[in-house]
Amino acid sequence: MTNNETNLQFRLAARPVGMVKDSDWQQVSEPLRPLADGEMLVKVLYLSLDPAMRGWMNDAKSYIRPVAIGEVMRAGGVGVVVESKSPKFAAGDHVSGGVGVQRFWIGAADDKSASFHKIDPRLAPLTTYLNTLGMPGMTAYFGLLESGQPKAGETVVVSGAAGAVGQTVGQVAKQLGCRVVGIAGGKEKCDFVVNELGFDACIDYKGGSVKDGLKQHCPQGVDVYFDNVGGEILDTVLTRINMKARIVICGAISQYNNTTAVKGPANYLSLLVNRARMEGIVVFDYADRYHLGVAALGKWLKDGKIKSKEDVVQGLENFPSALNMLFEGKNFGKLVLQVAEA
Amino acid sequence: MTNNETNLQFRLAARPVGMVKDSDWQQVSEPLRPLADGEMLVKVLYLSLDPAMRGWMNDAKSYIRPVAIGEVMRAGGVGVVVESKSPKFAAGDHVSGGVGVQRFWIGAADDKSASFHKIDPRLAPLTTYLNTLGMPGMTAYFGLLESGQPKAGETVVVSGAAGAVGQTVGQVAKQLGCRVVGIAGGKEKCDFVVNELGFDACIDYKGGSVKDGLKQHCPQGVDVYFDNVGGEILDTVLTRINMKARIVICGAISQYNNTTAVKGPANYLSLLVNRARMEGIVVFDYADRYHLGVAALGKWLKDGKIKSKEDVVQGLENFPSALNMLFEGKNFGKLVLQVAEA
Repeated sequence: MTNNETNLQFRLAARPVGMVKDSDWQQVSEPLRPLADGEMLVKVLYLSLDPAMRGWMNDAKSYIRPVAIGEVMRAGGVGVVVESKSPKFAAGDHVSGGVGVQRFWIGAADDKSASFHKIDPRLAPLTTYLNTLGMPGMTAYFGLLESGQPKAGETVVVSGAAGAVGQTVGQVAKQLGCRVVGIAGGKEKCDFVVNELGFDACIDYKGGSVKDGLKQHCPQGVDVYFDNVGGEILDTVLTRINMKARIVICGAISQYNNTTAVKGPANYLSLLVNRARMEGIVVFDYADRYHLGVAALGKWLKDGKIKSKEDVVQGLENFPSALNMLFEGKNFGKLVLQVAEA
Repeated sequence: MTNNETNLQFRLAARPVGMVKDSDWQQVSEPLRPLADGEMLVKVLYLSLDPAMRGWMNDAKSYIRPVAIGEVMRAGGVGVVVESKSPKFAAGDHVSGGVGVQRFWIGAADDKSASFHKIDPRLAPLTTYLNTLGMPGMTAYFGLLESGQPKAGETVVVSGAAGAVGQTVGQVAKQLGCRVVGIAGGKEKCDFVVNELGFDACIDYKGGSVKDGLKQHCPQGVDVYFDNVGGEILDTVLTRINMKARIVICGAISQYNNTTAVKGPANYLSLLVNRARMEGIVVFDYADRYHLGVAALGKWLKDGKIKSKEDVVQGLENFPSALNMLFEGKNFGKLVLQVAEA
């Protein structure tokens, strides 16, 4: 055991109003305690930073309980087992699970809320397990297939196209034979989405009219819209949907820091005119089939048919500013915080 | 042929802004013309007045083309064939179809947009063919079953509960073994819905808080919400839905006369939290199966298990004020305008 190490943690100090401020966090350093039987110590290597984390900080009913004041901030991540008193994991194992925003995770190896599972760094880089082979990839894969139900030849539009979920949604839709149009912020992201990820087109919402972009790039209308952003973009896409279109509500990053009411989609009656559907998805619902998603996406990754793009920021001490990058549209690919050298 | 009759018609004079004004209509009287081969003359007996008519008056893309300026206002109705030069219908036949807001319909017996079919006044009162056995009944039956997909024991909430569609939605849901809660305006309507139609409860949105009513009457939450009204009520129901709830978007009568933007459902992210679905329906999609809906509803009517409640206003000349009753919540049951004695 690394006795002389201390565990730096970010705990929730206050419920944020609007954008998260430094004062909403409390940094705590505490010494590592010895392990009890059945416990293990995990050294955190990478943390996954996700838009959903903003929601977990609110004291509101949601699909998961809020993080309590004084509690270590919830986060997924990958790490390496340093010491284990459980037969489930051995020192040296690489694991993925709910490690929290801290240098070390310590607890029962079979802790349900952490839900650790082994990962193999020889099959894919560790950060890929937080992206295409992790929660964002599962969200994209199952959300698109089960709720979006795209058919070959249909047009699929995805917002947050360069982000964690969006990048995989678009690439999977291409594999299924769809026309794929992304929406992202800035020329650099849009170029990446088209040139590197193989989308048919990408609309730069910062550089022009999304409505005009949809008219130009979706001449046959929109059959599936995978929404990560909400707000004005959702409302605009609603004006371009086809009969029997499917809108997958995966997130609404434009609304997460609102201090006023969420902007509802004023054009929702387009659902009526077009006999269309809007459905919310949460990745946990597919947990019993993650292995199928990992197998499919892993095969496409291995065959070079899809790519996993991460944006890695260094240093646990930079967690507060790194998290806010998500809401400023500053990350380019899945945002990952490197906590320690692998 | 009734040679000395003239045909009073209501034609669209102007596209209304907000509530429909008398000046939006042009009353035209024209003599009846002789029939060509294949044509028939129908004397209109009852007109169906529907919220959807407000939408047809707007020059906007929808599920059906707008009524043109100068055109006879579109309306469904029932009538009796006065004269026929078509083998399809004979004088004395009672028919239902798109007769328009006028005393007489004249044209090809197989006119597709009018889409006449015979009805039997011995099986049910003529007005029932504009309600439970007509478009509202078909909307309720197929919309509830196919999009709402209620299961026995689930809680179904329907707005506009005393209206044409709502009354049948609730009664069918009761037949399926659901707990049924209506939302309607005023104590009289709510009492009717509970005491005459057999709903489990009805929330008077004019007499109290819909949110409190939902808490009280839907202790197990809402599994299916059949929405005829939109606006604040939709937003409130969204806060009470269960996991995997289905929201059927049938109409949005609260928004049809808006001069400002439609109010989108600000609580739409409840769809995400609850993995719920919101889907638009249009009755025409079920046209090839209307006979199945008529058979099912007709059987329940005959067995006294459901009721068909119409609110009959007298006189074609009262069409403009009668139509506006819908948007003032003044009709009690399916609104029908009697044009002539049966």
